[in-house]
Amino acid sequence: MLRIGLLGAGRIGRVHATNIAAHPKSFLVAVSDINVGAAKDLASAYHADAADVDAVINNPDIDAVLIATSTDTHSDLIERAAKAGKAVLCEKPVDLSLERAKACLAAASQAGTPIMIGFNRRFDPNFSGIKIALSKGDIGKPELLSITSFDPAPPPVSYIKVSGGLFRDMMIHDFDMANFIMGDLPKTVHAVGSSIVDPEIGAAGDVDTAVVTLTYADGRIAVIKNSRRAVYGYDQRVELLGSDGLLSAGNVLEHTISKSTASGVTSAKPEFFFLERYMRAYAAEWDAFVRSVEEGRAVPVTLQDGVAALALAEAAANSLVSGRPSSVSI
Amino acid sequence: MLRIGLLGAGRIGRVHATNIAAHPKSFLVAVSDINVGAAKDLASAYHADAADVDAVINNPDIDAVLIATSTDTHSDLIERAAKAGKAVLCEKPVDLSLERAKACLAAASQAGTPIMIGFNRRFDPNFSGIKIALSKGDIGKPELLSITSFDPAPPPVSYIKVSGGLFRDMMIHDFDMANFIMGDLPKTVHAVGSSIVDPEIGAAGDVDTAVVTLTYADGRIAVIKNSRRAVYGYDQRVELLGSDGLLSAGNVLEHTISKSTASGVTSAKPEFFFLERYMRAYAAEWDAFVRSVEEGRAVPVTLQDGVAALALAEAAANSLVSGRPSSVSI
Amino acid sequence: MLRIGLLGAGRIGRVHATNIAAHPKSFLVAVSDINVGAAKDLASAYHADAADVDAVINNPDIDAVLIATSTDTHSDLIERAAKAGKAVLCEKPVDLSLERAKACLAAASQAGTPIMIGFNRRFDPNFSGIKIALSKGDIGKPELLSITSFDPAPPPVSYIKVSGGLFRDMMIHDFDMANFIMGDLPKTVHAVGSSIVDPEIGAAGDVDTAVVTLTYADGRIAVIKNSRRAVYGYDQRVELLGSDGLLSAGNVLEHTISKSTASGVTSAKPEFFFLERYMRAYAAEWDAFVRSVEEGRAVPVTLQDGVAALALAEAAANSLVSGRPSSVSI
Amino acid sequence: MLRIGLLGAGRIGRVHATNIAAHPKSFLVAVSDINVGAAKDLASAYHADAADVDAVINNPDIDAVLIATSTDTHSDLIERAAKAGKAVLCEKPVDLSLERAKACLAAASQAGTPIMIGFNRRFDPNFSGIKIALSKGDIGKPELLSITSFDPAPPPVSYIKVSGGLFRDMMIHDFDMANFIMGDLPKTVHAVGSSIVDPEIGAAGDVDTAVVTLTYADGRIAVIKNSRRAVYGYDQRVELLGSDGLLSAGNVLEHTISKSTASGVTSAKPEFFFLERYMRAYAAEWDAFVRSVEEGRAVPVTLQDGVAALALAEAAANSLVSGRPSSVSI
Repeated sequence: MLRIGLLGAGRIGRVHATNIAAHPKSFLVAVSDINVGAAKDLASAYHADAADVDAVINNPDIDAVLIATSTDTHSDLIERAAKAGKAVLCEKPVDLSLERAKACLAAASQAGTPIMIGFNRRFDPNFSGIKIALSKGDIGKPELLSITSFDPAPPPVSYIKVSGGLFRDMMIHDFDMANFIMGDLPKTVHAVGSSIVDPEIGAAGDVDTAVVTLTYADGRIAVIKNSRRAVYGYDQRVELLGSDGLLSAGNVLEHTISKSTASGVTSAKPEFFFLERYMRAYAAEWDAFVRSVEEGRAVPVTLQDGVAALALAEAAANSLVSGRPSSVSI
Repeated sequence: MLRIGLLGAGRIGRVHATNIAAHPKSFLVAVSDINVGAAKDLASAYHADAADVDAVINNPDIDAVLIATSTDTHSDLIERAAKAGKAVLCEKPVDLSLERAKACLAAASQAGTPIMIGFNRRFDPNFSGIKIALSKGDIGKPELLSITSFDPAPPPVSYIKVSGGLFRDMMIHDFDMANFIMGDLPKTVHAVGSSIVDPEIGAAGDVDTAVVTLTYADGRIAVIKNSRRAVYGYDQRVELLGSDGLLSAGNVLEHTISKSTASGVTSAKPEFFFLERYMRAYAAEWDAFVRSVEEGRAVPVTLQDGVAALALAEAAANSLVSGRPSSVSI
Repeated sequence: MLRIGLLGAGRIGRVHATNIAAHPKSFLVAVSDINVGAAKDLASAYHADAADVDAVINNPDIDAVLIATSTDTHSDLIERAAKAGKAVLCEKPVDLSLERAKACLAAASQAGTPIMIGFNRRFDPNFSGIKIALSKGDIGKPELLSITSFDPAPPPVSYIKVSGGLFRDMMIHDFDMANFIMGDLPKTVHAVGSSIVDPEIGAAGDVDTAVVTLTYADGRIAVIKNSRRAVYGYDQRVELLGSDGLLSAGNVLEHTISKSTASGVTSAKPEFFFLERYMRAYAAEWDAFVRSVEEGRAVPVTLQDGVAALALAEAAANSLVSGRPSSVSI
Repeated sequence: MLRIGLLGAGRIGRVHATNIAAHPKSFLVAVSDINVGAAKDLASAYHADAADVDAVINNPDIDAVLIATSTDTHSDLIERAAKAGKAVLCEKPVDLSLERAKACLAAASQAGTPIMIGFNRRFDPNFSGIKIALSKGDIGKPELLSITSFDPAPPPVSYIKVSGGLFRDMMIHDFDMANFIMGDLPKTVHAVGSSIVDPEIGAAGDVDTAVVTLTYADGRIAVIKNSRRAVYGYDQRVELLGSDGLLSAGNVLEHTISKSTASGVTSAKPEFFFLERYMRAYAAEWDAFVRSVEEGRAVPVTLQDGVAALALAEAAANSLVSGRPSSVSI
């Protein structure tokens, strides 16, 4: 039984609290949040205690810490929790700065506790199924990867300004997915982008629509498409062409109902956004973390993986500015 | 916060325990099972106590009882829990005997506590969505309902012998679905069936494949198809033709991956069986029960509904014997 | 090169004319119609001659006759063309009277020329694919067949009155499909029906919505659903459950476009009616006829098949009146 | 009635011959081919004459010429037929040389006869439906276009060497599709590619897998993916994201049958290659040509369109060599 301290009682913190409570091998001990009321409400729903961050990190009755706070606190909290000997599951991204993320990696590695980064999409059964099928040789050698990743609506421009930009904030998930599936870093990254959805996003120095092409040393190619706005919902698809076939993972839909009338056939939209689409993935992610820690095995998504995704985001941002492909190295 | 006693720590009891623990407004207090070890294991995973049935039913710190024991105990436990003033959620069917179910309805009605029957499929978002769309007038007036309901594999013949037969054990869900969607009882029930899947099932006096046709006083027609064996998984679909269109609810699939190779395109099977397919439905059912009780509203599936489904099962069983349509009345 | 005389220049006659002209092994020589202008127009589009029925049937430069005239002329024209030594492809049904159809079969059999009945659905690649997959053993032994067959809109009541009724006019296609797939005649036929779409159809002595259940001597079951009105188009599906799986043939859709917007995902309706849905089937049917005649092989749909489908229609009509299952024999 | 001379009796010539014969407003008069036997065979199947190219082009009883010969003859034959006053439908591409194509455009424009280029995909109802829906405003303003276009298998390397390369030979269709849907030329073209399918293709100086990104002056982006090998068949899809939604045109499948067994659900592959997939498109293309000429309206795909697609192919080829985006101008 893993005893858990949860840092962050916001939207994603509540998702994690439910998974911690439902899992037969984990138990929620304490919740912390800068909003004390939110921490208390969430704690009471699951018969846990509210506490401040230090108390949680230093609580000897807590085995593992789940970090679901704002991005700018991630590196620090990872380092502190690791030093306190806690196992850590931290939401993505590690940091907006590649340098700071590398420093966190160096510091945390010394502590030697398990540290997992919450790239939740790796636990989506559809995407992990692509990886498994590829590994089994179902489509022979991979050749061309295509990732479609559209959000339902852009965040406020005020958020865009502090987000680190589309590549670090949004496409970072897709960079991790490319790294996960391809099992290697690309050689070059070429980005095009525009602020065709909202010129205010352009005025804030960011793009809202982008296509990034990745080339690999062995001739493989990947392409990632992002848009901040798909009014029909969260569009999350992966396709991988190989020498013996194609693997394709589609959207998870709200339901299976279709309605056929004189004006056409209507069916479900994709699940609206990440909380809906990745509900099962968050539970699977939590299960993977609990099992890894309990069984003393390596976590399935490392802090190193978090740094690698950030390196691709930085290369893409550079390419967008220069108009030319960037090379990648960590 | 609803404090819950769980009767039955078997397969379906464990599903309910998880939902009770994950729900922010319910709390698992005690678990009972004739297998004391099973009760203890399940209780400890959720920091609850193991206790015997009487202790649970009479525990003043318990507000509601969830009955997930074997069918032959349902009527008795409903009556006892109701008398003890507990709200009740009981798994289907109420009983194998229509007479006993009617007696239970009479007895329990006097107690006046909320009693809900676990026809979980009503909480499947696909099937409930059919009902909602129909109610909104999306397809005009309903005319022809078609229910496909196949199990992945037949149970052991030893179970068949005590099951009450296909109509009471398996098709009862579909009879409830017909009652739920049509909002009325049929006028006639005509059944055909055979034991083409396994002659041993025929030797035990039951059928494993059946088609039942229902006619309604206003000209509507429904048809239910059952098979004990669909080797590809649990096949659960509903179609409703109306004056302005068709509503169709399909299977929930294991994943959204498709694999295209030289030999064809392969995609996911339906979720294997009821625990997988109706995972979300069980959670929604539990949420509906908790909200109804907490808010003092009528439960969405009544003991009366349980009796009505049983009445259709009895009519179908009679039709199979006589070779002619049976009439229905409660 | 097969030289063809076409009897009937109406809607379906024009479809056949196009297939005759496009086929590299057939050549349209003459067209006949009671509407002489229609015959001339169609003939001139394909550089053929217009002529009267006798001239076509007796033309020594014509090898085969395609009968696409009204139902009441079919038996006579089959007999006359057969006597004249022509190969014959005749549209369904053979006749509305089972007795007359049997007499036609007896008379035409003596002539010994190839006579094929235009049960076009057997040439739909989806339905024929079901038969082929079944024959290859893809789903083991067949157990439960389900046919959905809805027209987009009812014909005028004036037509209903002379149509022979839903079972002989519309469901006859589905009876033939059941005979085709099951490879045997059923033992019993049970029909329910109502005129819920249009009470005027009921007043004319017919039904517009019907479900027919067929049982076979070896325990197999089939169910056919018909409605005269599916406002979304021509709904034509077949499902066959077997010991090793399910074969399912869906609708052919107008296109493959889907549109995802904030209000849902919209996709294509089924092809509107039989001319659209079975466009490819008519071409395949024609090709099968040409090849059979040219190569001296048996035609794939015999006059006997036409009589068998009519026998099921008569049994269903009787069951609807009696309220009980009818037995079938030819 | 349009009287037609067909130049080329190869694979695609035979498709056109069938469409000419089946169309009620066109009539096949003569067929020419460097293989005289092929011309005779095809002519006799449709009661036409075989003749040499000059005889066809100069035949006063011929109104229009369909050019289905090898690519290196297109420019010359277009010019000669135009000079002879014939309407022309010519298979794509106009030429492998952008300069030669421009010269052909200049020469043929003087003749003033209708000249249409056979970009057949514009007549695929799925892709033309995307254009129509966009024009009706179904998804608001277009933002991001994605074209997937994979062949089932690479041609022989001997063909690759004379093909003009992947961009001029294969992706030219997709460049035309981008021009068709976007209604404008892109500003920049960036290409990546590799010969991961077959190193021999690389040794011949070509690529077999490529991703091309197009940017437009107003911020729109398009991406085209090509592979010479998709072992599951001809993969032809288009997706267009707009401010109000997504339009998506999928593959046309071989049939609608699905087979569900214990090992998964199997369904149809895409139609194998262009003759199967675009069978309906070729017929619609022919109908559009016949109607345009008969009614004196402008043809829907002009020689100018043929030149524009070639200009994009040249820009992509340049980008692949330089590693940087190319600009586009005609």
